[in-house]
Amino acid sequence: MGEFAEKIISGDIRSVARLIRDIDDGVPGVRETMKELYSHTGKAYVIGITGAPGVGKSTLVDGVIGNLRNKGKTVGVLAVDPTSPFSGGAILGDRVRMQRHSTDPGVFIRSLATRGQFGGLTQSTRYAIDVLDAMGKDLIIVETVGVGQDEVDIVKAADTTVILVVPGMGDDIQAIKAGVLEVGDIFVINKSDHAGVEKTENDLRSMLALGNREDRETRWEPSIIKAEALSNKGISELIDEIDKHADYLRKASSDEGAAKKKEKLRLLLRDMVTNRLMEAFSSQLMQDIHFEEAVESIYMGRTDPYTACDKLLLSKTF
Amino acid sequence: MGEFAEKIISGDIRSVARLIRDIDDGVPGVRETMKELYSHTGKAYVIGITGAPGVGKSTLVDGVIGNLRNKGKTVGVLAVDPTSPFSGGAILGDRVRMQRHSTDPGVFIRSLATRGQFGGLTQSTRYAIDVLDAMGKDLIIVETVGVGQDEVDIVKAADTTVILVVPGMGDDIQAIKAGVLEVGDIFVINKSDHAGVEKTENDLRSMLALGNREDRETRWEPSIIKAEALSNKGISELIDEIDKHADYLRKASSDEGAAKKKEKLRLLLRDMVTNRLMEAFSSQLMQDIHFEEAVESIYMGRTDPYTACDKLLLSKTF
Repeated sequence: MGEFAEKIISGDIRSVARLIRDIDDGVPGVRETMKELYSHTGKAYVIGITGAPGVGKSTLVDGVIGNLRNKGKTVGVLAVDPTSPFSGGAILGDRVRMQRHSTDPGVFIRSLATRGQFGGLTQSTRYAIDVLDAMGKDLIIVETVGVGQDEVDIVKAADTTVILVVPGMGDDIQAIKAGVLEVGDIFVINKSDHAGVEKTENDLRSMLALGNREDRETRWEPSIIKAEALSNKGISELIDEIDKHADYLRKASSDEGAAKKKEKLRLLLRDMVTNRLMEAFSSQLMQDIHFEEAVESIYMGRTDPYTACDKLLLSKTF
Repeated sequence: MGEFAEKIISGDIRSVARLIRDIDDGVPGVRETMKELYSHTGKAYVIGITGAPGVGKSTLVDGVIGNLRNKGKTVGVLAVDPTSPFSGGAILGDRVRMQRHSTDPGVFIRSLATRGQFGGLTQSTRYAIDVLDAMGKDLIIVETVGVGQDEVDIVKAADTTVILVVPGMGDDIQAIKAGVLEVGDIFVINKSDHAGVEKTENDLRSMLALGNREDRETRWEPSIIKAEALSNKGISELIDEIDKHADYLRKASSDEGAAKKKEKLRLLLRDMVTNRLMEAFSSQLMQDIHFEEAVESIYMGRTDPYTACDKLLLSKTF
């Protein structure tokens, strides 16, 4: 094993920070280090926390960190930010969030904001989870903003997925349903001192009752917790519920467990192979003379994009 | 031209609805129809409206439709919903939104919720925009939820992008920045009767001032409009501003215009070719015997995913 990987496993903060930055920047050499780290992963418990902007995720995560630290657990936090098409950098993150834990050596917080095509953010998050796992963190919290497909893919990497809502989201609560409701193991209604909390709870309950949850691989019945993260209310209930879910997963029949684990590996490997291939392919394609000719032809109205696409696929000069 | 494409161009509602359903379901034959429609596209003006759940997008879109209809314009609306990994269906959409326009023949409203890998939602949205364009709608409104990469790709297809925020989103307003702030042409602060509207406006102004907007292809200076969509306040100001932006684009130097249009075509064609290839590749890969062997090896701890990926890419038996 190389010196760099050894430093990661020994928990050296600088090395871990550098590797995560390299992952975020898409440095190719990262894969070699990940290979070396792999046998040291699989010990950490991964908690995904997701919800729309404004629901108080950072505050809740801050409370969860505090609770876990009081129990002597070490915690890694990955704040997954939406990609900026122009700046490409993590604008949120380390600096502004969870300030009070920033000097605690038992807590490691980083944000990811990988730009680029082909599942970049999902893959970077998987890599970064493995790094925090290999460095020895007991629990890893992955916090995501929004409700897109990326988010769904990311929460699939978690052992327990927590979905955060607030009262009074109206029809838009359905947007969460369509996105990630089905993958939620625990629901937290934050800001539960606000008006409309009963309606939100009822909406959630009926959606959970009528939802497509029979398709889930698990028979776990998700619970709904009311919280006021700002005043630390509901945090210990949430931790208890996460413990219950972890117990459930441990006790689940080994068949169910193995099938679930293999399916995760299948998706991981498929995405890895596909992404690698696509990276290479996409840059080749854009440099191909026939590609630029095709763009010109469409622009001049001599052909349409669909026909041009067929031709490029048939010729395969790239 | 086939009968089906002719019906679309003549504005036959049933045919349009069927084609959009086929697009959403990923029916392969769709591409042939799209080829026929292509020469009838390029006339509609596309407005993208985006913002987090709960900011009142549907209400605003409802107001915008009303205003445009009063001016005699026909309107198409695409509500792009986040993908559900389990149900796969459009849960929001036609039924619950914008009810009062549902019987107006000058308005056509549909939702898209394409599941699946490889830019499915972005591609479906592009196709559906072309369909509404070919059927003769003057304006097409594309409404998206959330702040992920999909959303950014989708708003790039719009001529004018409107970003909706509400007061009091706190730090999370930055999440919008990282996602789509840089691509916004017009910003609307909805629910502007709520507390904190000045802070939100100031935050927006300073982000716009300091943001990476010099990277934008346009010199348009985005404006900030205050609205209360529920009581129809700010809607006509928004429409005026959209008109101003459309004027700006028309008057932009022809060089700038051509470069912008070609870059859009380039991305469109790249995504089309890449997606087609990936669809084929991904299913081949998952059926390959070596792929399943690799999954088994990783599961048994005989190898790691990174090494397995390298081997699959080298052997290329799939």
